[in-house]
Amino acid sequence: MTGHRLAVLGAGAVGGSVVELAADYGHEVVAFADSSSAAVDPDGIDEAGALDRKERADAVGDGDPADALAADYDVLVEATPTTLGDAEPGYSHVEAALSRDRDVVLANKGPVAERFADVRALERDSAGDLLFEATVGGAIPVLATLADYGPRNVSAARGILNGTANFILSRMTAEGLGYEHVLAEAQDLGVAEADPAFDVQGTDAALKCVILANVLSEARADDPAEAREFQLTDATVEGIEDIPGSALELASESGRTVRLVGEATPEGVRVGPRLVPPGSSLAVSGTRNLVQFEHEHCGQLNLSGRGAGGPETAAAVLADVGRLS
Amino acid sequence: MTGHRLAVLGAGAVGGSVVELAADYGHEVVAFADSSSAAVDPDGIDEAGALDRKERADAVGDGDPADALAADYDVLVEATPTTLGDAEPGYSHVEAALSRDRDVVLANKGPVAERFADVRALERDSAGDLLFEATVGGAIPVLATLADYGPRNVSAARGILNGTANFILSRMTAEGLGYEHVLAEAQDLGVAEADPAFDVQGTDAALKCVILANVLSEARADDPAEAREFQLTDATVEGIEDIPGSALELASESGRTVRLVGEATPEGVRVGPRLVPPGSSLAVSGTRNLVQFEHEHCGQLNLSGRGAGGPETAAAVLADVGRLS
Repeated sequence: MTGHRLAVLGAGAVGGSVVELAADYGHEVVAFADSSSAAVDPDGIDEAGALDRKERADAVGDGDPADALAADYDVLVEATPTTLGDAEPGYSHVEAALSRDRDVVLANKGPVAERFADVRALERDSAGDLLFEATVGGAIPVLATLADYGPRNVSAARGILNGTANFILSRMTAEGLGYEHVLAEAQDLGVAEADPAFDVQGTDAALKCVILANVLSEARADDPAEAREFQLTDATVEGIEDIPGSALELASESGRTVRLVGEATPEGVRVGPRLVPPGSSLAVSGTRNLVQFEHEHCGQLNLSGRGAGGPETAAAVLADVGRLS
Repeated sequence: MTGHRLAVLGAGAVGGSVVELAADYGHEVVAFADSSSAAVDPDGIDEAGALDRKERADAVGDGDPADALAADYDVLVEATPTTLGDAEPGYSHVEAALSRDRDVVLANKGPVAERFADVRALERDSAGDLLFEATVGGAIPVLATLADYGPRNVSAARGILNGTANFILSRMTAEGLGYEHVLAEAQDLGVAEADPAFDVQGTDAALKCVILANVLSEARADDPAEAREFQLTDATVEGIEDIPGSALELASESGRTVRLVGEATPEGVRVGPRLVPPGSSLAVSGTRNLVQFEHEHCGQLNLSGRGAGGPETAAAVLADVGRLS
């Protein structure tokens, strides 16, 4: 494996962990930016210094964010927050890097969930490659496995793709508590955000399934440029807010449990609460995520692990960086 | 991905499936041999014809096996039976391909379990690469995940690595039947061989763990050529033949179950029956395999699927072929 020179955009938990761990994986960070500042050094930035300054003064360096995008890097790591609709500013960052024939690794789901056809068109016109393992299932090697085993051979990908929703359902089932009670508890523990809508309404899981559906769809197209594209608006999504505790009790009585299951096929995306038998691979507990492929030659493959977290997601980003030649 | 020209040695379930599926994955078979015959064609052999002849007449073509090894291929797929000790003839096949600067993909565990240092030395002197995903866990992407996520960051790999043993233990537990009874049933179903020693004594699981230990050990060495090498004789192995039904009952009474668990660390290999809680990822049922990594940044990653079978193992071989540049 060759060491790469990284520009990291985004200084949240994931971007920060990428900067912290890059050297462990044999790479060098030459640029690092948050939304209002940047640290750039062609000989490698002072990672610890930049992270320390971010914590103390909410800036990673003295430079302008545009300096990081203009720096001389091999791989752009895009770890700014996921946005819906036009997926900006992530999309413009991807465009800037690919137009310079640089590789891009995404942690930001927006560009591949909301503008998949556009980013693939940019990639076709570029000598650079685009990878996005970290956008689906955190630490779990979902997209690498799809790529290696052939997405054309996978008829469906389904899974537990939101740790917050799964934590809430697990607790409601195990303790017989109501949704509002467990949500408040999850917020206290930092497992749920103050505004939990993105997680509990199924949006986050749906975005991940949309990405999977795009990969499955393009693999089946004779001409990838003509592949059917999916966006969030194409997904059928139901969240967990309206599940009464009594429904979980009823499920338990029949020996089953309820999970927020997302499913992607080459034809579309569905996310919603489903009854699953207790022995099922889908009956994971707590914040863990799981992805299950139905593969023509392998049967069912199950991959599970932590679906979120800074170092976990950064490890998936750095696995992608390592796959680039 | 580039299509490759394959020479496939071994015409059992795995070699046959590689030949059958190669075109699906974008590759071409230019040579195919069993122990006494070969089909060679620089323009691509007639796959269906060779497989049909193998079934009818126990020969894949009119050529000599040596012709396949001498053919003009890009990647040698070594799928002859695993042998212990000197790992022949697999080892000589690997040597012949690497000495011609060709890539090698192994389904045969022998060379990497019994002569890891030797094959790595051959690889260092070659422009060819050696991959061996199919040697551990059948369809499960074990070694690709290790490579992508950095074997240096994995402190232990453990798992359920023999489907026959796991089937027998699952049935003994579920039905309260004795070992001999369930073994006979497994033999009737084709899940156990007429001579089951290799599976039930833990040898097969141990070989897979030895391969994992070699990968973990070499990743930690300053100089890979100086890495500590493991062979089957270094493993501490206990099988399932002597487990009384009463022990399984006792485990059930305390809410647990017994599984044949293999564990590899950079320091060594242990395989033996272990008590596992029912909610544990290790409590897989039937012939399924599972591998669990302890990763410094990702926590626990679990990968499970079919650990054996022609098409399943061939898919892992072809995933390796696809990873070659």
